[in-house]
This record gives sequence, structure tokens and C-alpha cells, in this order.
Amino acid sequence: MTPQLTLVGAGPGDGELITLKGVKALKCADVVLYDALVNPELLAYCPAHTFKMYTGKRAGRHSFQQHEINSLIVRLARKRGHVVRLKGGDPFVFGRGHEEINYAQQHGIACEIIPGISSCTAVPALHGIPVTRRGVSESFWVLTGTTQEGKLTDDLYLAARSNATVVILMGLKKIQEICSLYHTLGRGEIPMAVIQNGSRAHENCVIGCANEMPELLKSRSIGAVGAAGPAVIVVGDVVALHPDYVLDYVQRGSVTA
Amino acid sequence: MTPQLTLVGAGPGDGELITLKGVKALKCADVVLYDALVNPELLAYCPAHTFKMYTGKRAGRHSFQQHEINSLIVRLARKRGHVVRLKGGDPFVFGRGHEEINYAQQHGIACEIIPGISSCTAVPALHGIPVTRRGVSESFWVLTGTTQEGKLTDDLYLAARSNATVVILMGLKKIQEICSLYHTLGRGEIPMAVIQNGSRAHENCVIGCANEMPELLKSRSIGAVGAAGPAVIVVGDVVALHPDYVLDYVQRGSVTA
Repeated sequence: MTPQLTLVGAGPGDGELITLKGVKALKCADVVLYDALVNPELLAYCPAHTFKMYTGKRAGRHSFQQHEINSLIVRLARKRGHVVRLKGGDPFVFGRGHEEINYAQQHGIACEIIPGISSCTAVPALHGIPVTRRGVSESFWVLTGTTQEGKLTDDLYLAARSNATVVILMGLKKIQEICSLYHTLGRGEIPMAVIQNGSRAHENCVIGCANEMPELLKSRSIGAVGAAGPAVIVVGDVVALHPDYVLDYVQRGSVTA
Repeated sequence: MTPQLTLVGAGPGDGELITLKGVKALKCADVVLYDALVNPELLAYCPAHTFKMYTGKRAGRHSFQQHEINSLIVRLARKRGHVVRLKGGDPFVFGRGHEEINYAQQHGIACEIIPGISSCTAVPALHGIPVTRRGVSESFWVLTGTTQEGKLTDDLYLAARSNATVVILMGLKKIQEICSLYHTLGRGEIPMAVIQNGSRAHENCVIGCANEMPELLKSRSIGAVGAAGPAVIVVGDVVALHPDYVLDYVQRGSVTA
């Protein structure tokens, strides 16, 4: 028995958006440690003997600290062999995957990385919004809405001034601040999409501009207590390529049909 | 027979980094139009009757213009049914996938999008470089090195001043200009990785800083005529997490061991 760790990206939620290589790893896992955003259907690929452990946060239950997960990985790899660490999206895009790999390697555990489809590009794409488009956007900038200190990332102050398509993950709680920032910069009319539960059941896509987004979300009960779920925020002219964009403007009277 | 188009991301090169959903689409394709960066092994998933057509550029051969591909998709969908458009990486990340979907939809063809693993995050990850890392980088900015006009994208002038990890695709021919820009901004010592043919055979990863990168690449014959191949350029402190980074500095004498 050789202790080993395979870090696998589970993709944005749809159980078929995992890679062939990811499934192969699950099929020879002795242990799977999985996060809150992982589609539980994926666990069915594991053999009968696989020890499956949930490490995410869930209301009313103990949630593991990062150092506890790191040490769990090492202990379980030594005790049982092949640990698959299954994380939503891509483990290296705000996934803290590198911290886990780093710790395991320092403890002599062989590691492999299997990238996953990140929601930062896939969730907009599934709604017909390309993060880049010739003649519209030559780059995209991906940020987290939730920094270690709980404040808005400083990077957003520059991103909101740039020509890049801005993609914000884990930013729903900061939507008011984000929209205010664009407003302050005189860019409140910039097209914006908020997509919650992208590629999953109950997904929601709200299209508008930064100035009106907080109200639009309120009217759709998105971001409210009890309606949690991961969201991707996309800001930039590429959002205007979404078929609802013009329609929305017509309905609101900003553009005459 | 219903004409339809499925746009599929083939991933960065490794044939196992396509999604289950992508393989499912190939298994029921009547036509596959595939690009230069697609792993040809993937075509083996197609049924025997599938008409397979290469649309990429190749030395000495006619390469299709975008409008020709658009019209091919529509004509083949009407004539043969299910067209799978298989593109390297993710079709919406500098892939012009949106232009194809757009054209097909305007011609009444039903379209589906199946995202792929983009090399912008996966290729660095496979080399142990996370595009984000707690305490090191809170965001990443993905740019193209080759704009429509053939010049460096204006976005890079701001990106090079930002705290974001900068990821440049299709930028190998512009490496001298890119490194000079960092130098001019007083950031020539910033860690930089150039990864060519990531996740494929003959992959090459060069780690250093912006000031020395053009010379390092020359000494490794990367980017030279005859050594073509897609490359991912990563700039930022996350590159220093690569195990070769310190070693390189020690070897060069910039840091004393």
C-alpha cells in the first residue's frame, strides 16, 4: 500500500462535467474527501470499499478547518492508501488545493493534480456569455468576492476600471458594494449577470446593469437568507451578448424596441 | 434528422482531460469539425459513420477562414444532422466559439455548449503553479498575446501593474515585448513561467523572472522557428511556488543557498 493523494476538480456541478481522468481516479480511490459544492452523484464511481467523508460546511454541523483537512489527508493516505480529494470547480482556482498538495508533499505523500472545469468560465458559457469575444473583450479577470479578511479584494478597485471582463466568484454577499463601486466610477450602466447554481438544478440567471442589480436580485429573492448557493458574477460588455439583455432593457424602457 | 450543433471543449491536450459530456457528444456525432490543438485520439469516440474534418491551420495547407467554418457548420448540420465542433481548451476562452454558436443560431440550428478545461488554469496547475493562493494572489487575469491587429493587447499595460496573476495565452511570439514591459515598469524581477505543450508529449516548463526569460527561452530553443507549439505564460508571485524557482535562483547566484 502506497500512500498517495490525487486532487480532483469535480467541475461546476453538472455530474457530467468531470473529466475522464477524474472518474478514473475515483474508481481507484480508497478514501474520498469531498466538499460542499461537489455533485454527490460522483461518489457512485467509487468502489464499494471506499471510505467517503464530507469535509464541507453545512448548517448546524461541524466544519473542518483547513489544517484539520491537511492532516486528515496525510493520516488517511498512510492508513488506507489512495486518497482522492474531490473539490468543486477547479481545485487551484480559489480552491486552496495548493495548500493541501503542499502539506501532503512535505509529509512525503506522492501527489497528482487533475484539473476541473472552473465555474468562472463554464457557468457564463452555459448561459451563452463568452468571457472573451473578438471585438468586445480581449481578456478576463477572475476575482474572489470573499477575501481572508472578509473585505472586498483590493484588486477589484483596479479591475472595475479595466477593459477586462470581470468575473467574481463567491461575491454574492458583497453585491451591493460591488455595484456601488461601478456606480462611483461612473460605470453603473455596465452590463452585469449574476448566475446562481450554474449548471445545477434550480439555477438562476439575472441579467441587467450594475446600477439595478441589487434591486433585481432582491425581487428574485437571490442572495437572501435561505436562498444560498454559489454564484458567479460577470461584469462587462460580453454580458450584452446574452439574449435576455436587450429584452430586459426594452422591458425596463431604457431602450425603445 | 434534426440539424444541431454541439460546441465541445477538448481540454488542454491530454486525451483524458475531456469531460464525460464531451465524450457523449462525440459518440453521437454525424460530423466532427476539429481544430489543430485537439488531441486526435478523441476522434476514436466517434461512430464509424462520422464525417471527420480538420479545420485548423497546418504548414503548407489551406486554412479555413472563420466565415467559412461558420457556413460549413450550418451546411453540414442541414445535410448530415449532429455537428460536433471540437476545439482545444475551452471554446469560449479566446476560442471564437461564441461567433460560431451565434451564426448557427441565426440560421435556426439548435446549439448546445459543453465547456472544456482551459489551459489558462490547468496548464499552470499541472506544473504545481496555482493561479490563486491565499496570501499570495487573490485574482488572476487571462489575456491573449495575439490580438486581431497583431499587436500586444492594451489590457496588458494595466495587467502588468496589477497584483493579479497574469496568464497570457498565444503570447510566445510577443515574449520579448511582454518582458520589456515588466522591465520598464520596474518589475523585471517578477517570477515568470513559460509552459509549452502543457499536458502533452514534449512539454517544456521554463521558470525564471521576466528580465531573463527571453534569454532562458533562447537557450532552450523555445519559441524558435521549428519548435512551435501552444504556450502558456504565467507572471506573478505564485510562480515562486514552483519547486524549481528557488533552485533556479540559487543556480544563477541571485540568492545564496
